Amino acid sequence: MIFYYAIQTVSVASQIALEEAGAEYEERLIDFRTTEQQSEEYLQVNPKGRVPALVTDQGIITETPAILGYIAQSNPAANLAPLHDPFQFAKMQEFNNYLCSTVHVNHAHKMRGSRWVEEDDEQSKAAMAAKVSRTMHDSFNLIENDMFVGPWVLGKDFSICDCYVFCISNWLVGDEVDIKDFPQIYEHHLRMRDRPAVQKVMAVHGL
Amino acid sequence: MIFYYAIQTVSVASQIALEEAGAEYEERLIDFRTTEQQSEEYLQVNPKGRVPALVTDQGIITETPAILGYIAQSNPAANLAPLHDPFQFAKMQEFNNYLCSTVHVNHAHKMRGSRWVEEDDEQSKAAMAAKVSRTMHDSFNLIENDMFVGPWVLGKDFSICDCYVFCISNWLVGDEVDIKDFPQIYEHHLRMRDRPAVQKVMAVHGL
Repeated sequence: MIFYYAIQTVSVASQIALEEAGAEYEERLIDFRTTEQQSEEYLQVNPKGRVPALVTDQGIITETPAILGYIAQSNPAANLAPLHDPFQFAKMQEFNNYLCSTVHVNHAHKMRGSRWVEEDDEQSKAAMAAKVSRTMHDSFNLIENDMFVGPWVLGKDFSICDCYVFCISNWLVGDEVDIKDFPQIYEHHLRMRDRPAVQKVMAVHGL
Repeated sequence: MIFYYAIQTVSVASQIALEEAGAEYEERLIDFRTTEQQSEEYLQVNPKGRVPALVTDQGIITETPAILGYIAQSNPAANLAPLHDPFQFAKMQEFNNYLCSTVHVNHAHKMRGSRWVEEDDEQSKAAMAAKVSRTMHDSFNLIENDMFVGPWVLGKDFSICDCYVFCISNWLVGDEVDIKDFPQIYEHHLRMRDRPAVQKVMAVHGL
């Protein structure tokens, strides 16, 4: 497999899951500083011009929850998701879908406001950026109080949800949110940093 | 099961899937006109204050891709998803995740801008709303040209992806996008309207 990623992006989640699964893959860095994600070559891999993308023998997969689910399903021995209970599988998906459709989107309003207003509308982009600290705080408050089961996200078993929320929890400091406001998430964040798979990926990303 | 929904919202996608699966469920209408989604009673069901929510014997599921996946996995005879091939399952998820994290989010910038800027910042909210027609057009262009396999979203078999993209395709007219710009999506939309399950749900929503 080939894993396309960019430094300190949401790629971190899938890359940790690949390491936790013990999967064999090659890494290919996409350089956001030269907007390589919009290069003709990379648009052949992912026409959305985003990372990550995972090239498999059967074809290319994009979107973090889809890549995470694939890693879990194709490496069942790693036990990275509740694969045999549709309800528990749905709770896993519910968590990851909240991260992709609400939390990541909240965060994106800081630097990627031009997705939703004109590129040169500095006033609206600043108005969006100004609210990110609050929306990210509210999202992590919900995760802390209503979603996180403990000791891992879904309960007693480590899962792909832990990789994903850990990845996003690294963005909180830049979004001016104090992770210590969420004791379970903070303790989880520290515990994640002790895992060899996490340390390997964090080194790649200079984190 | 109990299915909580609101009129002409993304609930339509899951409701069609429930009908296509032949699932037994009770409907409970949440009235957005009285912001019932923020009532203390409903927040007990879904602390996010959103629809849909599906109450099962094991607990409550939220987030459209999670509910759709649950319906497919718990009604395997209905053949609503590629359940036995991790790659094809991931392609299904990739499609649904694009809808929830990009397309639905684009649409939400028309009426729900106060999620991302101050409630009274009319100028920024108007700037967001002004771009929705373009972002929705671009998203459906990508779906038409790079994602839709045909005759159904994933190929020869009908799936939960068809329920979801049909639901969102109903929003295009309000977003000032001409569905006829996307010939495959338009033909799919008309074909979906012929299905008894779709007609039953559309009648509930006055569509």
